[in-house]
Amino acid sequence: MANLLSLNSELRPATTGGEQAVAAVTKLHDFLAKEAEVTDREGRFAGQSVQALADVGVFAAAAPSDLGGFGVERLHDLTVLTAAIARADPSVAVAHYMHTALAWYFARVVRFGADGEPGYLPRREWLEAIGARRMLLCSAVAERGADYWNLATTAKPSYNGWVVNGRKILASVSPAATHFYCRLRAERGKGAHLASAMIPADTPGVHVEDDWQGLGLRGSGSGTVEFSDCVVPEDALLVRGPWGKRDASMLEGRAVSGMGLNGVYLGLAEAARDEALAALNRPSGRRRTASAAVKTSVAEMETALAAARGTLATALQDFDSYLLTNKPQVTTDDVSRAMMKECQTVSTVVERAATTVVDHAMRVTGGASYTAHHPLARAYRDVRAAVFMPPYSPPEESVDFLAGVTLGTSPD
Amino acid sequence: MANLLSLNSELRPATTGGEQAVAAVTKLHDFLAKEAEVTDREGRFAGQSVQALADVGVFAAAAPSDLGGFGVERLHDLTVLTAAIARADPSVAVAHYMHTALAWYFARVVRFGADGEPGYLPRREWLEAIGARRMLLCSAVAERGADYWNLATTAKPSYNGWVVNGRKILASVSPAATHFYCRLRAERGKGAHLASAMIPADTPGVHVEDDWQGLGLRGSGSGTVEFSDCVVPEDALLVRGPWGKRDASMLEGRAVSGMGLNGVYLGLAEAARDEALAALNRPSGRRRTASAAVKTSVAEMETALAAARGTLATALQDFDSYLLTNKPQVTTDDVSRAMMKECQTVSTVVERAATTVVDHAMRVTGGASYTAHHPLARAYRDVRAAVFMPPYSPPEESVDFLAGVTLGTSPD
Amino acid sequence: MANLLSLNSELRPATTGGEQAVAAVTKLHDFLAKEAEVTDREGRFAGQSVQALADVGVFAAAAPSDLGGFGVERLHDLTVLTAAIARADPSVAVAHYMHTALAWYFARVVRFGADGEPGYLPRREWLEAIGARRMLLCSAVAERGADYWNLATTAKPSYNGWVVNGRKILASVSPAATHFYCRLRAERGKGAHLASAMIPADTPGVHVEDDWQGLGLRGSGSGTVEFSDCVVPEDALLVRGPWGKRDASMLEGRAVSGMGLNGVYLGLAEAARDEALAALNRPSGRRRTASAAVKTSVAEMETALAAARGTLATALQDFDSYLLTNKPQVTTDDVSRAMMKECQTVSTVVERAATTVVDHAMRVTGGASYTAHHPLARAYRDVRAAVFMPPYSPPEESVDFLAGVTLGTSPD
Amino acid sequence: MANLLSLNSELRPATTGGEQAVAAVTKLHDFLAKEAEVTDREGRFAGQSVQALADVGVFAAAAPSDLGGFGVERLHDLTVLTAAIARADPSVAVAHYMHTALAWYFARVVRFGADGEPGYLPRREWLEAIGARRMLLCSAVAERGADYWNLATTAKPSYNGWVVNGRKILASVSPAATHFYCRLRAERGKGAHLASAMIPADTPGVHVEDDWQGLGLRGSGSGTVEFSDCVVPEDALLVRGPWGKRDASMLEGRAVSGMGLNGVYLGLAEAARDEALAALNRPSGRRRTASAAVKTSVAEMETALAAARGTLATALQDFDSYLLTNKPQVTTDDVSRAMMKECQTVSTVVERAATTVVDHAMRVTGGASYTAHHPLARAYRDVRAAVFMPPYSPPEESVDFLAGVTLGTSPD
Repeated sequence: MANLLSLNSELRPATTGGEQAVAAVTKLHDFLAKEAEVTDREGRFAGQSVQALADVGVFAAAAPSDLGGFGVERLHDLTVLTAAIARADPSVAVAHYMHTALAWYFARVVRFGADGEPGYLPRREWLEAIGARRMLLCSAVAERGADYWNLATTAKPSYNGWVVNGRKILASVSPAATHFYCRLRAERGKGAHLASAMIPADTPGVHVEDDWQGLGLRGSGSGTVEFSDCVVPEDALLVRGPWGKRDASMLEGRAVSGMGLNGVYLGLAEAARDEALAALNRPSGRRRTASAAVKTSVAEMETALAAARGTLATALQDFDSYLLTNKPQVTTDDVSRAMMKECQTVSTVVERAATTVVDHAMRVTGGASYTAHHPLARAYRDVRAAVFMPPYSPPEESVDFLAGVTLGTSPD
Repeated sequence: MANLLSLNSELRPATTGGEQAVAAVTKLHDFLAKEAEVTDREGRFAGQSVQALADVGVFAAAAPSDLGGFGVERLHDLTVLTAAIARADPSVAVAHYMHTALAWYFARVVRFGADGEPGYLPRREWLEAIGARRMLLCSAVAERGADYWNLATTAKPSYNGWVVNGRKILASVSPAATHFYCRLRAERGKGAHLASAMIPADTPGVHVEDDWQGLGLRGSGSGTVEFSDCVVPEDALLVRGPWGKRDASMLEGRAVSGMGLNGVYLGLAEAARDEALAALNRPSGRRRTASAAVKTSVAEMETALAAARGTLATALQDFDSYLLTNKPQVTTDDVSRAMMKECQTVSTVVERAATTVVDHAMRVTGGASYTAHHPLARAYRDVRAAVFMPPYSPPEESVDFLAGVTLGTSPD
Repeated sequence: MANLLSLNSELRPATTGGEQAVAAVTKLHDFLAKEAEVTDREGRFAGQSVQALADVGVFAAAAPSDLGGFGVERLHDLTVLTAAIARADPSVAVAHYMHTALAWYFARVVRFGADGEPGYLPRREWLEAIGARRMLLCSAVAERGADYWNLATTAKPSYNGWVVNGRKILASVSPAATHFYCRLRAERGKGAHLASAMIPADTPGVHVEDDWQGLGLRGSGSGTVEFSDCVVPEDALLVRGPWGKRDASMLEGRAVSGMGLNGVYLGLAEAARDEALAALNRPSGRRRTASAAVKTSVAEMETALAAARGTLATALQDFDSYLLTNKPQVTTDDVSRAMMKECQTVSTVVERAATTVVDHAMRVTGGASYTAHHPLARAYRDVRAAVFMPPYSPPEESVDFLAGVTLGTSPD
Repeated sequence: MANLLSLNSELRPATTGGEQAVAAVTKLHDFLAKEAEVTDREGRFAGQSVQALADVGVFAAAAPSDLGGFGVERLHDLTVLTAAIARADPSVAVAHYMHTALAWYFARVVRFGADGEPGYLPRREWLEAIGARRMLLCSAVAERGADYWNLATTAKPSYNGWVVNGRKILASVSPAATHFYCRLRAERGKGAHLASAMIPADTPGVHVEDDWQGLGLRGSGSGTVEFSDCVVPEDALLVRGPWGKRDASMLEGRAVSGMGLNGVYLGLAEAARDEALAALNRPSGRRRTASAAVKTSVAEMETALAAARGTLATALQDFDSYLLTNKPQVTTDDVSRAMMKECQTVSTVVERAATTVVDHAMRVTGGASYTAHHPLARAYRDVRAAVFMPPYSPPEESVDFLAGVTLGTSPD
């Protein structure tokens, strides 16, 4: 029963599908961990790890089981799966998550949707492709110097369909993607809308630069993708809302996506803690356990992990109790803001906890952890990404958002 | 649905019994809050608040409903109830909890027990008395300068039963207690055991000194109780274990009791945050909301509350999933230690979060909060008790315990 | 030489005058410490302590030695003196500082002034009165709900001189003051100026309410003073500047005054640390020193004190090197802002360090420190005043000020 | 005068020699900063930067001016010089410091020494060589898995002199060193002593592996040096003390050396802060300055720098007031421990401050700072070295040491 105490141990999947997906990752753990070291050292995309996970169906985790997936419906399970991957390689966990968060969202739309609803059919087809392992998605949203609601990438109508032009950055998993799910400005006549386009990687004009050189998460393939006069069919584009507005309704999707991403940093922290305890269990480490500083660091690691696990688990339960019973994007602005607020606070708790764990793990391990390719040196670089990732963007606006929502002055 | 997001709002009871008990408290909130100010100012026991809660059945919360109680079985609900009281008066929350944690434990024994088991019958009778509101318990354990496993209070056999002598401190709710549940050293012949005795308050030789003068929690009645040649019947004494050993099996009870106590500090923090937001909503406060420091403080309060609520809620779920399906004290040492570890880390998270919230609440409110009897000045004094309370005693051993359990060197 | 290491021990005066003043305080230490406990317990002004310090000349510390004072010219020495008093009683340290900071400023004006300059003569006379122990000043500036630059107290001209009306709060040492140095709005015709008036305590219409009831600093006599149609002679009023402007030139005085006040919290922290080490040196404490948490707390206390002492000592050296060679109020706005910035950052460092020391001192001492009148319980209440005191007012503006000055957008 | 306020700006040298050395560095700043980026990217020793500094005499800073140096005698100036280099390249600052701390120590011995004292003559000669830029020292002390007082490198007597064997790690500046100042175990007959040997780099058997691959400080050349049967003349070896004892008298040297090293992290932090403010001053940064989080970060950076500068400046004044008037190694154990204690607390303050500054600098700068070779990404890697460097080794013993000295149980 000791491991029934979830704060003392890794979070566990809540459903059979989740368990299967996690088990598939666990089997690959050693391979992924080894690849993590090599790809980090060489500063290149962890393509073989992505392929290995795809081969055993982990990239189809969110597809319904009748379509070939694990049928993971709960954000809890998706997050636990992300943490499991991150324990071996946080880069691959990010790469996987960016794909799977989209797949999971499509599945949610399809679960609630009727055949006739707009957006139902393509998503149903995409899920089939994902279940059949024919589709690996890259979320192409971010642009240099642009806010998420004010992008420079455009789609303009032409005889053949839409013509897309733009340059996306931080496009994780892009070197392996078969499709780019691209957020852009759709212009028709004088009107403009925020829209998403599904662009196959083999479309002429798509150029994956594979140029990611980050301080950490070096295997995540988070480089640049350029779209030059890419033509996509009319129905590959879905309108998401009016153009150029910060819109509370968009907060729901970003909150959900941001919440699950916490799995990356939780798994990273768990691996760092295990690495440190292993070092202390070696003969050279044993004698260090008598020092007050080491004892204090060990206690702080356990406390930080309890905070991260507990806060995240409760939040996921909250989110799932809503997500499993409500269609996407039918929520009120108040609910969207409440979700984003919870996402923000939880992400802050997880980020701080993970940073604390890595700090103490290095202290406990000693100078060896300061060599360039030590797993904890890598964790130190990887964990730093947390403050720069979603849910809020730019990240410094998080405080203004939290204060605004709490004080009732509601910025979005 | 906004308030379905548990990290943004107060934790809610999971069962009808819990809801009823919380509702009873909520009705009394204003009365309790007013009394809290008066009794704190005068440094005296909040007897009228205790009486008011007893009158509406809150002290019978853990008694089965057929015995007149609310039938609260889950530690989650007991903790949520504690937080609800603490939002009005943390002193009374402590006073109530010390009684109800015992009652809850008796109910657990009785739920699992068969008629013939030792300890079943008296506890069944005590529960009846509690349900009938004839019994209000004081847990008389702590002694000056003594560890919990090495007490100076004794019970010695005599013609009439056991004769108890000793001096207990920190006996919360003692001025209102009808009975003292007293931990002591039972000596018979050459042998000695750790035992508990139920001693009616009207037993000759019982002297309640009502002398608590704390920095905070001033209404909790946590003073000294002296037992001078108190005679109690043979069957009022229950042997708990061997004498003078730090015994891992005792960790379970202390972990459970310590976990629920976190409700005190969560409720206290929630009230402090509400007080601060109310101050910012007054005309004199509105203009202050533009400052970066105030925004940051508001965000920090929300984040700290999310951490406290989330971590505590997950831990309570863990504990309940075990407690609802296992008899007391049948656990292994490993499980006991795991429970104590989770209790320690969670209590640390809650203590730090509550301290952070009170700090920022005062900053946001400004100099007014520094007047002697301002609710936040009281919260500042009350919250400081957290580091000195169970689960670990003496508190500085918490780090050694956590490090020992985690590193596998197992001190208890 | 061990005590040549200033970060390991108390800061020492730099001049003979400073040493004499500190020696006079040291002799009274035990008396002051005893009074501190009594006056805190009873919530009343520490009048006898103030009298005792006045009797040995400590309230004349800043007066030149030929006028009967100790001739303390350096802000460093004034701050060290303040810390010495605070080690016995922070309340009295505040009471003394509010008087002596004014006296010290008068002495600075006189040192640089020529006979004919405006403001020279009265200040010279005041210093004589202070040196002869005929004058004890209360700085009457703060008003409820008003900013320092926008006060409601007025002086209006009449046949007999100025007529002052207003209500001042936080008037430390007011119960013992012979004079009130009152900041107000002087109105003449249509014009208005920010001005200071020296009002004898026996002026008809002066009412000292002696109503201070703070969470801490309870012996500082920081209550309300009411001025009702108080008539003061024409030359008792000194014009300080234009009305209603936030004026960078005022920052210099506030920065200097705020810097020295750090002595209160440094001394408080030093006493708290000594109290904790004494507790650990008792037989009941010795065994606790083996725990990792106690060792860590001891190390943290020493580190925090090193930060407070070192940062403050360097800042005082900076300030003195300017103050000893420059007249008051001839500085540029840039220098004033720079001084205020240094005052802000240093005060933050000292406040955080003192709070950290008190926290660990209580942890190390254990539950005993949670009794209402334990010296550490008092320190816990006293230290909290730091965030609400000058230099910045309202305190939450400190961040905006620091950011503004650093980023070159210069708010004052 | 604004820059007279030392906490608002860089610390300044106290003597002309210090000013000259700093000025020489300042001229090279842009070159060093550019090299820093290249050598970090390529993970190689910053040899050209070391050469450039040597060419302008900075490696002769501690040599007396009549021997061709800048005559820097104060530890304050040496630390300020170190910070100046670190603002351009912390790697080179470490490389330089390791050489110059030794040279500075030799100069101190020579200043106090008489011609006849043992150790005087060689050091006098070494200083001449340093002044003439013929000598660049590498301090070869650390060994894998060994404590500083229990090393595996040996010197054994032979016909030709001592024969040295051993393997040293973390030998900063080793690729450029002309000599290795090597700590070892000198064995003669049955006796053994702790000793130092000066070994020319061109001695047969010296092998500089130039294999440093750290997380940060990548240009510092801190790799391995192997000594295989290196023969050095009899008088190249100086006995330092008895073998295998942790000896309080050794604390003085380590405290002095550790104290100056703080300059590395102070300079690093100052550069990080400047980088962040520059980013905020660009058009893309300007709009971010309105956010509460950015303002708070700016204020926290300034506060952290004030703490680091102030604490370090006072400590250096303490140390210099002792070092300028006392011979090396004549001190009592109590003084040695006091110096080490001050070194520990100050190093902790500087380390935490520098870490805080880099954290906020990255937050303020945004995601751009997360690219692999951004100056702040480098600072993030470099600053992490602070917890693993002297003064205490292994670093986790710092808490035990501080607690022991403070509580009077004196471990060394």
